[in-house]
Amino acid sequence: MAYFDNNATTPLFPGVVEAMSEALAGAWANPSSPYRDAARVRALMNQAREEMAESFGVNPGDLTFTSSATEANNSVFTSLANEGFDQHRVLLSPVEHPCVSEPVRRYFSDRFSVLSTDVNGCICLDSLESELKSSSNPILVGVMAASNETGVIQPWKQVAQLCAEYQADFHCDATQWIGKMDPTDLSLCSSFTASAHKFGGPKGVGVLVSSKEHSFLLGGGQEKGKRAGTENYPAIEGMRVAWRVCQSKNLTISERESWRDSFEERILGLDSGFKLLGKNAPRLWNTSTFLVPCFDNQNWISKLDKIGFQVSTGSACASMGTSTAPMVELYHLSAGESSRLIRVSSFWGHSAEDWIALGEAFEKAFGLLKDDSSSSSVISI
Amino acid sequence: MAYFDNNATTPLFPGVVEAMSEALAGAWANPSSPYRDAARVRALMNQAREEMAESFGVNPGDLTFTSSATEANNSVFTSLANEGFDQHRVLLSPVEHPCVSEPVRRYFSDRFSVLSTDVNGCICLDSLESELKSSSNPILVGVMAASNETGVIQPWKQVAQLCAEYQADFHCDATQWIGKMDPTDLSLCSSFTASAHKFGGPKGVGVLVSSKEHSFLLGGGQEKGKRAGTENYPAIEGMRVAWRVCQSKNLTISERESWRDSFEERILGLDSGFKLLGKNAPRLWNTSTFLVPCFDNQNWISKLDKIGFQVSTGSACASMGTSTAPMVELYHLSAGESSRLIRVSSFWGHSAEDWIALGEAFEKAFGLLKDDSSSSSVISI
Repeated sequence: MAYFDNNATTPLFPGVVEAMSEALAGAWANPSSPYRDAARVRALMNQAREEMAESFGVNPGDLTFTSSATEANNSVFTSLANEGFDQHRVLLSPVEHPCVSEPVRRYFSDRFSVLSTDVNGCICLDSLESELKSSSNPILVGVMAASNETGVIQPWKQVAQLCAEYQADFHCDATQWIGKMDPTDLSLCSSFTASAHKFGGPKGVGVLVSSKEHSFLLGGGQEKGKRAGTENYPAIEGMRVAWRVCQSKNLTISERESWRDSFEERILGLDSGFKLLGKNAPRLWNTSTFLVPCFDNQNWISKLDKIGFQVSTGSACASMGTSTAPMVELYHLSAGESSRLIRVSSFWGHSAEDWIALGEAFEKAFGLLKDDSSSSSVISI
Repeated sequence: MAYFDNNATTPLFPGVVEAMSEALAGAWANPSSPYRDAARVRALMNQAREEMAESFGVNPGDLTFTSSATEANNSVFTSLANEGFDQHRVLLSPVEHPCVSEPVRRYFSDRFSVLSTDVNGCICLDSLESELKSSSNPILVGVMAASNETGVIQPWKQVAQLCAEYQADFHCDATQWIGKMDPTDLSLCSSFTASAHKFGGPKGVGVLVSSKEHSFLLGGGQEKGKRAGTENYPAIEGMRVAWRVCQSKNLTISERESWRDSFEERILGLDSGFKLLGKNAPRLWNTSTFLVPCFDNQNWISKLDKIGFQVSTGSACASMGTSTAPMVELYHLSAGESSRLIRVSSFWGHSAEDWIALGEAFEKAFGLLKDDSSSSSVISI
């Protein structure tokens, strides 16, 4: 199978399973326990913390291990609400992942605004600046680094600079950025989050980087009181190994963009009805999301699956029909159109040939769907 | 090393690491994605859910996978508070784990009461009944099944029956019960929680069993909207394998109690200053917590560690000094006394000989500590 749904989750990098197995078998002690084996696990965990913090250019004490980016993103907004900061206003982009927008809608129902954007959901910096300038309340801005749905990149560095200028806090959900793009400047954000299983690590572990206290999971005093629950060192070790692999990859981005571009050109050439979302916006090198001219995306996905290619309808949570995809609102898609969205998302393991094969698969699937359609028309006559 | 700190975390049962490695390598697809490999992982995950639900005698739809018992316990109380049930009162035992008591203190600050107990922290059913009878508000009772600190068992079945009689909700933190004791009657509780790493499974996964909606982690619509975040099937599979192992063990409990009793008798015979916490209360077969007559528990633990035995000062979170141990308040321990607490906690892998060896180790450590003390006195003269 050729797997092109890496924005949903990634296969584990070579070495991650082995590192985790070793940790599960040999470093399972509770890092908070008081004997030497536990101290050894605590030291290993803190080495992983230091290593990741160094690559982000942040203080290791500001990096908290969580069970997911969902937990980390929830934590930032929920803890602000819970800690009685009832003067704070929240400004969000309209394309935030539901794990950012849902806590904000719940806890800041009458104290949040959606930022103005261009047609692709990239926020307007001028408009943000006037919001920041005119507000007499403390502000927390939430803008993701890049969209899980379209790969569209937000001007998050400029957002960070503006927020610093106006002394607003800026939280950046960097889940789709970290592991695919250079993480250096994320230290400009007040807080940011990542998820290991989006960059070749295991599910069940993420990071929240923030110099603030975020009390969300309450209970034991783990992670210096910032996050309760027994620390999951084996998963942290898996994340560390995956993170090391990602570090060596960034130099190949422009080449990968060209593979993706050739693929997109081919698809757009198949039929004038194919539309590429965020076509003219800066985008991650790995993501293409199309509005296809005909046939339900479930049929496309099933056909592509049968010929060996795994792609998605959009975000995995939205594909289960339980959550509304932000891009549906952003692009004012009708119900019919929203069921004709297909996302492909690559990762470091793919070659130019894989992208070419994906293009061929789309062409083949399109032909087969048309054949199915015409033969079913014949039957129905 | 002989490991006697299983209430903090357990080593993984044979087969768990292999099952997880296999799932990490071959069943890493996002269970919410729309192709066949993802559907296969979703099916495996739901088989694990059905298997665990069946052994608890509950509806599989009521079993939600979480990242920990901490998250699951937080979820029950936080979601009640967040969903605007502002008439609810919460009644807690005084020995609840901080992941129960801290969210309650935060979110129900003026709407919770601590239940009356006997000297060992076992709640008084009469007193609970009069609370339930006299309250005009809806009630949520939180009583753990067994204490992580002392192993003392609460009369949770009777609590469940009383709560049912008075139409109160009853949440039971069964983290230390599940995997050590018969789980059958837990289905009498309105909700209960478990943690895989307390019964031979991996860290980073737990369960919340409840027929109610608990919206705590918000975002994607995973777990039928009950818990956002990509489902961690490899960890769930590890939990399932560990759970199967536990199922076969319950018949050996009375034998294990006798090993523990002989150990305790030996320790109490070492010096009249040794006190056993919860001595006359019903207790888990695996736990003994002593107040030792002299020498700081850190010295004891260090000495025992050097001679090959890992024991604890109490709960792992409390041992880091960041959280107050409920038993310190319960037994009115002075600062000096609270630093003389030692907990030993066994698990299924231990034999009668292991308990005997632990008794010998305590005796040896006591002798060595006395020697150290007298030689340091000599030096100090």
